[in-house]
Amino acid sequence: MRILIVNPNTTASMTEKAATAARVVAASGTEIIAATSRMGPVSIEGHYDGALAIPGLLAELKERQGVGYDAAVIACFDDTGLEAARTFADVPILGLCESAVVTAGFLAQRFTVVTTLERSRVLIDNLVRRYGMGDRAKVRASDIPVLELEDAASGAIGKLRDEIEGALSEDGAEAIVLGCAGMTDLARELQEIYGVPVVDGVAAAVKQAEALVSLGLSTSKRGSYASPLPKSFTGAMSGFSPVLKVG
Amino acid sequence: MRILIVNPNTTASMTEKAATAARVVAASGTEIIAATSRMGPVSIEGHYDGALAIPGLLAELKERQGVGYDAAVIACFDDTGLEAARTFADVPILGLCESAVVTAGFLAQRFTVVTTLERSRVLIDNLVRRYGMGDRAKVRASDIPVLELEDAASGAIGKLRDEIEGALSEDGAEAIVLGCAGMTDLARELQEIYGVPVVDGVAAAVKQAEALVSLGLSTSKRGSYASPLPKSFTGAMSGFSPVLKVG
Amino acid sequence: MRILIVNPNTTASMTEKAATAARVVAASGTEIIAATSRMGPVSIEGHYDGALAIPGLLAELKERQGVGYDAAVIACFDDTGLEAARTFADVPILGLCESAVVTAGFLAQRFTVVTTLERSRVLIDNLVRRYGMGDRAKVRASDIPVLELEDAASGAIGKLRDEIEGALSEDGAEAIVLGCAGMTDLARELQEIYGVPVVDGVAAAVKQAEALVSLGLSTSKRGSYASPLPKSFTGAMSGFSPVLKVG
Amino acid sequence: MRILIVNPNTTASMTEKAATAARVVAASGTEIIAATSRMGPVSIEGHYDGALAIPGLLAELKERQGVGYDAAVIACFDDTGLEAARTFADVPILGLCESAVVTAGFLAQRFTVVTTLERSRVLIDNLVRRYGMGDRAKVRASDIPVLELEDAASGAIGKLRDEIEGALSEDGAEAIVLGCAGMTDLARELQEIYGVPVVDGVAAAVKQAEALVSLGLSTSKRGSYASPLPKSFTGAMSGFSPVLKVG
Amino acid sequence: MRILIVNPNTTASMTEKAATAARVVAASGTEIIAATSRMGPVSIEGHYDGALAIPGLLAELKERQGVGYDAAVIACFDDTGLEAARTFADVPILGLCESAVVTAGFLAQRFTVVTTLERSRVLIDNLVRRYGMGDRAKVRASDIPVLELEDAASGAIGKLRDEIEGALSEDGAEAIVLGCAGMTDLARELQEIYGVPVVDGVAAAVKQAEALVSLGLSTSKRGSYASPLPKSFTGAMSGFSPVLKVG
Amino acid sequence: MRILIVNPNTTASMTEKAATAARVVAASGTEIIAATSRMGPVSIEGHYDGALAIPGLLAELKERQGVGYDAAVIACFDDTGLEAARTFADVPILGLCESAVVTAGFLAQRFTVVTTLERSRVLIDNLVRRYGMGDRAKVRASDIPVLELEDAASGAIGKLRDEIEGALSEDGAEAIVLGCAGMTDLARELQEIYGVPVVDGVAAAVKQAEALVSLGLSTSKRGSYASPLPKSFTGAMSGFSPVLKVG
Repeated sequence: MRILIVNPNTTASMTEKAATAARVVAASGTEIIAATSRMGPVSIEGHYDGALAIPGLLAELKERQGVGYDAAVIACFDDTGLEAARTFADVPILGLCESAVVTAGFLAQRFTVVTTLERSRVLIDNLVRRYGMGDRAKVRASDIPVLELEDAASGAIGKLRDEIEGALSEDGAEAIVLGCAGMTDLARELQEIYGVPVVDGVAAAVKQAEALVSLGLSTSKRGSYASPLPKSFTGAMSGFSPVLKVG
Repeated sequence: MRILIVNPNTTASMTEKAATAARVVAASGTEIIAATSRMGPVSIEGHYDGALAIPGLLAELKERQGVGYDAAVIACFDDTGLEAARTFADVPILGLCESAVVTAGFLAQRFTVVTTLERSRVLIDNLVRRYGMGDRAKVRASDIPVLELEDAASGAIGKLRDEIEGALSEDGAEAIVLGCAGMTDLARELQEIYGVPVVDGVAAAVKQAEALVSLGLSTSKRGSYASPLPKSFTGAMSGFSPVLKVG
Repeated sequence: MRILIVNPNTTASMTEKAATAARVVAASGTEIIAATSRMGPVSIEGHYDGALAIPGLLAELKERQGVGYDAAVIACFDDTGLEAARTFADVPILGLCESAVVTAGFLAQRFTVVTTLERSRVLIDNLVRRYGMGDRAKVRASDIPVLELEDAASGAIGKLRDEIEGALSEDGAEAIVLGCAGMTDLARELQEIYGVPVVDGVAAAVKQAEALVSLGLSTSKRGSYASPLPKSFTGAMSGFSPVLKVG
Repeated sequence: MRILIVNPNTTASMTEKAATAARVVAASGTEIIAATSRMGPVSIEGHYDGALAIPGLLAELKERQGVGYDAAVIACFDDTGLEAARTFADVPILGLCESAVVTAGFLAQRFTVVTTLERSRVLIDNLVRRYGMGDRAKVRASDIPVLELEDAASGAIGKLRDEIEGALSEDGAEAIVLGCAGMTDLARELQEIYGVPVVDGVAAAVKQAEALVSLGLSTSKRGSYASPLPKSFTGAMSGFSPVLKVG
Repeated sequence: MRILIVNPNTTASMTEKAATAARVVAASGTEIIAATSRMGPVSIEGHYDGALAIPGLLAELKERQGVGYDAAVIACFDDTGLEAARTFADVPILGLCESAVVTAGFLAQRFTVVTTLERSRVLIDNLVRRYGMGDRAKVRASDIPVLELEDAASGAIGKLRDEIEGALSEDGAEAIVLGCAGMTDLARELQEIYGVPVVDGVAAAVKQAEALVSLGLSTSKRGSYASPLPKSFTGAMSGFSPVLKVG
Repeated sequence: MRILIVNPNTTASMTEKAATAARVVAASGTEIIAATSRMGPVSIEGHYDGALAIPGLLAELKERQGVGYDAAVIACFDDTGLEAARTFADVPILGLCESAVVTAGFLAQRFTVVTTLERSRVLIDNLVRRYGMGDRAKVRASDIPVLELEDAASGAIGKLRDEIEGALSEDGAEAIVLGCAGMTDLARELQEIYGVPVVDGVAAAVKQAEALVSLGLSTSKRGSYASPLPKSFTGAMSGFSPVLKVG
């Protein structure tokens, strides 16, 4: 089984971190391959960045069809382009937020997602509600720019720990979800420190991808995620025309 | 006051139809200008088309800043790119679905949205729920490809009327919302036939745009829609870098 | 176009304030006429006052049919008698709360309504939920009796500002809605001070009224708001009998 | 213990029917007294009738304070004026809809309310949702004008039975709630015919009133239902001024 | 009328306390009989205790059928085994939580349940949501082990009062529900101290039981609560086989 | 890794079927062990059967601690005893319904669960809502007694297929979830026939168990699922006393 990790931002060091996290939890027969978007923003902080990251994401999903993959993980906690990717692909596509909150839901009745910037907080809160966890999960922002997570000297981890402690003491959180792909390397350590489950989205998504492939399940092509209809795309988007794909 | 109507698909005849509908309802002091996306799909049918229409939409919003506009309407009922556009812009941005369901909410306690293809039905149903109308509105698909609405001989109107009749007799609908920008020219006639309010999204959005501009209100730049942070965008998306915009 | 502003309490100075606010935002072709209820309470603070204000409201709506109006705004943030008025009238009827929260919804994903007394807080919170904004809006009371808003020396504005500041720092509010018709003159100034959209219900409702009239839309007479059936009304209410209206 | 049954419409025969139903289920120590509104509509069918029935209802609640009562039941399934009455009174006030759906909730996980006219259906559906039963209860209209229930030859019972049968076969109803005070005499017979619990609102409300009085519980005067503030009421409403009540 | 109070834990002093509370509020014609479970935990604190208390509860319900009872109350605020008991029995079965929150709902629009341990807080919060009060009620834990409520010197009452005061000042509570059968003797006193309704579940459930019996209503045997199908039960559970019951 | 499949009913052939299904999808390093409850009902059809199956389930979970297991799956679609088991155990515990609906949620935006008897339909519908899928999933009953699924000649599969076809044509289902452990062997074939994802709970739960173990995650012991407190259990339940477990 081969799972593609696509980083929808263009920062290769984040791709590396996600791929490493993926390999740590992957089953013995699973090969992890990774791709970094080649067009779009260096980090995804809010709706504008997110929307403009989708073509780069879809381009990677398309190009790697040559190599082949059995499932793909979109390595951004905003689940950037998840619905478009599911419509495009014939294999299961996993997002970090959906995978992580679902995983936390097996472990705890109430939990808190700790993300980076305030501008991402409501965006993630809306995702959490859409995934049916609105009554069970709160979302906190720790005021950390995404790329500061790449810099050990930034003080980012201290801010993150402050919010985790607030979640435990004020929110009644029984588990913590790390709300950014860039936090993937911190989960195990934080779990030991706080003694509650700490869920990382990259790892969670990889296991969901393995599960779906093993089960012979893929995205339904009836209704919401039906394959794109053949039609003309123009300008810089002409390469995405579903006509070309079918032909 | 100048309102920009942006068609996020590349079909100029649909832009024309929307601009005409906008001009019919615009106040005397309102100038309607229209733009058609120059990159992306010829019609938006489902999540894949929608995601790939956003860069073209944002490009038009950016380019027309030269001319200047006081508010913009995204002329697609899927509210394609609405959140990204609100993050980008300093002026009010309106979507058809949000404007139409809000308008219907002033007129009726229960109503039905009639859209085109089944693949758009759940997408719109999810929007309706996000806009807080999940308990009040149903969504029906009439199995009409978007571009058939441009063809009088296609039988599209018959299918649309079948669904409206079903909404009235089975859903308890007290009003109808037309769930596609391409239906904008049908609202008045259908309202006369059925004797219930029939709401068109283009017209509704224009009036909401006028209202917000008159009230001196614009998108909040605190939290969810805070302006994009300056950062590097690469590849085909490099023109969208917020660095350039600020500079 | 003529829009009737009806104040459902009997305090003429509040009617004046609302009419002035309405005229400030009205389009050039819109005439604002105003009416003050002639029976009922001097201010509406809670359910009892509100229920007993409705006959006076409906009486004004009826009497002004002689002059004629194209839409009416009920100038109380509790949306007093809104459903009864919609059932009665053949023209669009707008409430302040519904108009304001809908308007705020175009500008922000999360916002806070700041109202007067604690006894009105839950009442408005229930309205906010009914209008589908329960996940997006909080309601705060500032402990100001309604008529103190008419008195510059009352300290009311200080209390109001305290709650706005609490909303911004504690609720994650991205915009503010002023939850009382008596605050209508404060919106612009508060918007400048706090740098977030501040929505006033009177102004918002006037623009929604203009929008609906321009669009040729009126309250559905199918289902919930079907015209009152002809029947006998007795005692002090005999003048409201729908028989008289039809005859 | 004395319980006041107030019929908010002016039809004395309906008051009689409700009082009779109340006496059938009242405990041995409970005295039922009844009052018919002396101002307002002869029946309550929709929002307009309902709003104009409230002053007559409140007048009876006030006048009967002379005789004294320990709790009151508002004998209309629309829960007309329930919140205003709770604000006014120092004793428990019960509505039929709230009492009936709560009672059904102890007996069944899913149930259907069968009411009279289509115009009342959404109104009751909104009440059902407010009382927290939106996921558990459906509402059907049987197209019976309220006063036809007083006429055995009207065919009303046949229409009612059709809807009950539809509820059982199509809605998955496990119990039935009769959604009009005028149906109170039919509950026992229908329960025998269909073999599922059939809940009548008048009877249910009487038992809730007895329960609250026995428990020494009354409406909270903190927050939503705080007693009306002393203030001037004018015109035909001047008799309702809370100043008079306190004095 | 005879009402059975079953304590699903094995602590007889709690049964006594509940029976006493029941007798205080029971109508003159109501006989209260009480039973203490003879198998299971001495107190119910969390899901494990609760699940293992159900067989003992059902055994008492079955054994007392010899004596006969017209309704039963399960004297634990977690509503332990409520659904199983309703499926088993031919008479109404009441739970404390459901009865109490419904009762509070007639008195206040917002209220707070104060329970014992943190581990019971979310469990009760989930019940509150299932009963449709999720928007209206909060749940607080006072960190009191259940059996400490039996010990006047434990300081339990002080902790309970702290949470009630927090509910009034921070939650906007208009009424209080005592969230443990062991608090049943405190309701009257706390109501006097705080001047808001304080609802005890035992008393509330007894009155609901009386109400249902008087109304001739019992659990629906259609759908969710249909009588157990005859089938073999083995091992320590063999005595519960529905075959025996039918035969 | 060793995963325990516990059948909470006492029918060994159903255990076998579930264990076989589990082994088909288990990863190469996963050992599946199976246990059949030795006390309780032969099948679980409704709340009564379910409650009385929990002690047998917990007894198996406890006894197999001698052998050791890394996670356990409760092989009943009603998620019988799931919360009690999570409270008891130190390893992840998975239920079929939660695992299956979560899995379907990655594949489709709308889906239908097809279960056996009508008496289980609302029970499962309530689970689906608790798991946050109430807006996305419908539940249908196919009128098949659980044990008929063991009998190829029973016509059960025809009834099941009828409901699947109804789900696709009437519910807008994009995927199907099989709502009974006894249907586990039918998933692949039905998926081929209908061309939409068909999710079996046993297989889904095994993969979730593997995922959690691989991720080093287990049930939170903070809050809802905190380990049972040491206390006395009496009678037939004395063996379940947490005192014994700790000692």
